Amino acid sequence: MTVQLDIGAINSMVVEQFPGTGNRCIEIGPDFAVAAYDVTPSDIRPGGFVSGPCQFALADCALWFLSFVGLGRIEPMALTSELSIRFLRPAVGDRILCRAELEAVSRRSVVGTAHVWVDGMPDKITAAAQGTYAVPLPR
Amino acid sequence: MTVQLDIGAINSMVVEQFPGTGNRCIEIGPDFAVAAYDVTPSDIRPGGFVSGPCQFALADCALWFLSFVGLGRIEPMALTSELSIRFLRPAVGDRILCRAELEAVSRRSVVGTAHVWVDGMPDKITAAAQGTYAVPLPR
Amino acid sequence: MTVQLDIGAINSMVVEQFPGTGNRCIEIGPDFAVAAYDVTPSDIRPGGFVSGPCQFALADCALWFLSFVGLGRIEPMALTSELSIRFLRPAVGDRILCRAELEAVSRRSVVGTAHVWVDGMPDKITAAAQGTYAVPLPR
Amino acid sequence: MTVQLDIGAINSMVVEQFPGTGNRCIEIGPDFAVAAYDVTPSDIRPGGFVSGPCQFALADCALWFLSFVGLGRIEPMALTSELSIRFLRPAVGDRILCRAELEAVSRRSVVGTAHVWVDGMPDKITAAAQGTYAVPLPR
Repeated sequence: MTVQLDIGAINSMVVEQFPGTGNRCIEIGPDFAVAAYDVTPSDIRPGGFVSGPCQFALADCALWFLSFVGLGRIEPMALTSELSIRFLRPAVGDRILCRAELEAVSRRSVVGTAHVWVDGMPDKITAAAQGTYAVPLPR
Repeated sequence: MTVQLDIGAINSMVVEQFPGTGNRCIEIGPDFAVAAYDVTPSDIRPGGFVSGPCQFALADCALWFLSFVGLGRIEPMALTSELSIRFLRPAVGDRILCRAELEAVSRRSVVGTAHVWVDGMPDKITAAAQGTYAVPLPR
Repeated sequence: MTVQLDIGAINSMVVEQFPGTGNRCIEIGPDFAVAAYDVTPSDIRPGGFVSGPCQFALADCALWFLSFVGLGRIEPMALTSELSIRFLRPAVGDRILCRAELEAVSRRSVVGTAHVWVDGMPDKITAAAQGTYAVPLPR
Repeated sequence: MTVQLDIGAINSMVVEQFPGTGNRCIEIGPDFAVAAYDVTPSDIRPGGFVSGPCQFALADCALWFLSFVGLGRIEPMALTSELSIRFLRPAVGDRILCRAELEAVSRRSVVGTAHVWVDGMPDKITAAAQGTYAVPLPR
């Protein structure tokens, strides 16, 4: 499936193929992608913080969008090979954002770095991640 | 908060303090913890696979339970410092399990290794993770 | 290059192709490999500890040997895609060991978990790692 | 030990306390540090590439220098808690560089992101890493 790479097309694919996620693409550029998520009460863990898995899910999604950028096409079957994440400070807020930046693209994988923050506080990174996305191999 | 370390007490804490998660503790031992999760339709991503974030959330929870084992007490404020996860094969099924094993406990952190699999297929690990949990410092 | 998989053949390849490393294979099995390293003065960092990079290098080598096990052949061009390592306690001693265990093998990668310890203290893991090794693709 | 934070003082400490390493600090700024290493024949692995552990060692050192920046002092006992690294393309050259950028500083740890490249090819990142450095706790 190759679809022109724009935000609307990415989000249409997400809504259609992965309806369970609330993560959305809000910006793409030549070497980055930004995703956003509106926090729900079920994402709050003890202490009132946005849960780690919720931030992980957003970072994973931003890096997935980034893999589309790296590949130049919407490729739903780009799969997370590995992702490491560090939680840097408590995340408290209604909306979180994540910017993923491209490190490298090869014929087998896309690698990027991601930063998560609470909307309005871009200088207070709440999580930093790096990950690798496997590109489907030709059969 | 110090509560006797048994599965019922752990799950009561989880239900009370983190009602949004469906992850539950199903077994603990001297150096391990096992968590389980019943997959919901919203956890399924393109291809019909249990999503990576869903598996991450279970691994994170199993390691959180493991930190209680390592500390000898239920410590809801043990927080994930960092977690790295590798996705090894597609996960297809209704229920996923994760066993976390203790690597080390110090006064500042607990480290463990975790394996995720689909119920009934313990030989087919779908994700492997390692992570560090920060122990609250005395004030 | 395909050579019968035994310890002698592995170490011969290492000595010939990568003479700069002192890491050696000392044991292999159906799903594991063990590597050893004799610590030199240049590996000691402030505090008298075996340096992190020295332990990383051993873990990386043990996992490389493990990739041979997973592939069933000595494959010098299996390359580290990614490796994450946690340092658990100070390593003080003259010889360090690392056991790597197989998590998964696919046509594109081998994933394993590794534990490092000082010779004679197998219960005191000094570092725990997980990593992914890329299998050369057919051209 | 608190010493004024400048490149000369950092390298003097390195040479004195960790004579085995060839990694040097070549630049620091308010939220970054750059380290350099002159590759030796023993760092070359099969294929003619600068070895992964050699790049890891440089990244680890750059992040160690970064922890000094984050703490505002030379703190030799800042220790690597964990480091994850991704190897992005072959590194071929005589000198490698690594820039580490600060993500967060807390009273217990410093977290940063690092990029490695071969001198003269800053647009061709050969490895990307993220890691956590433990700050010594008051006794």
